Amino acid sequence: MAKPKPANAKDPAECTQMILPVRDALDILSGKWKLPIIISLSFGNKRFSQMAREIPNITDRMLSKELRDLEINQLVKRTVYPSVPVVVEYSMTQYGKSLERVIGELRNWGMQHRKRIITKKSSE
Amino acid sequence: MAKPKPANAKDPAECTQMILPVRDALDILSGKWKLPIIISLSFGNKRFSQMAREIPNITDRMLSKELRDLEINQLVKRTVYPSVPVVVEYSMTQYGKSLERVIGELRNWGMQHRKRIITKKSSE
Repeated sequence: MAKPKPANAKDPAECTQMILPVRDALDILSGKWKLPIIISLSFGNKRFSQMAREIPNITDRMLSKELRDLEINQLVKRTVYPSVPVVVEYSMTQYGKSLERVIGELRNWGMQHRKRIITKKSSE
Repeated sequence: MAKPKPANAKDPAECTQMILPVRDALDILSGKWKLPIIISLSFGNKRFSQMAREIPNITDRMLSKELRDLEINQLVKRTVYPSVPVVVEYSMTQYGKSLERVIGELRNWGMQHRKRIITKKSSE
């Protein structure tokens, strides 16, 4: 460990190093829909219409676009069953499951954020 | 615990319940710049120009807009020192520090995602 320096004198490269992987993650998970879709699939395999019902306010168009992005990044798998009529099912890949802890922390933070807002409003 | 049900039969309300706090968190942290700004301030108080240098590709306009949003949500504090010339410094609030674990998990995930991409490219 380097000896402590005043905060402002820290190496800017160190800070940038820390930012880059977070940016990589944000690039993949960007927007307001990808994580909700992954959460929905964490409860089990789903068909398109089931997800459309479970995710508040998502449009079919958005859901379809985001599912395609998630498939490209191998977080979600699309399986077509050759029945009559054809059944299409979406599932989370093993790789998608690696997001569990990220989602858990976002959820914890979101819950305490909402609690904080409510407490504040009621004390105003 | 309820007894196991087939995945598809799960209560959709349970899934929606899980999505809402994550959505709350994403609303506050949306976009590609807010977390990088918070990371930059986690290394110490900064002036505007220092942050503009440390955060890859951010424009002054974006930085200024995002700092304002973060200030409104009380994640970042702006302090004006009445020196000549006036010095403006940004710092992370106690509340901003509560994002540490979210950032840590995003960073871990981003790092292993990058490793995965590189391994795949080199084996192609």
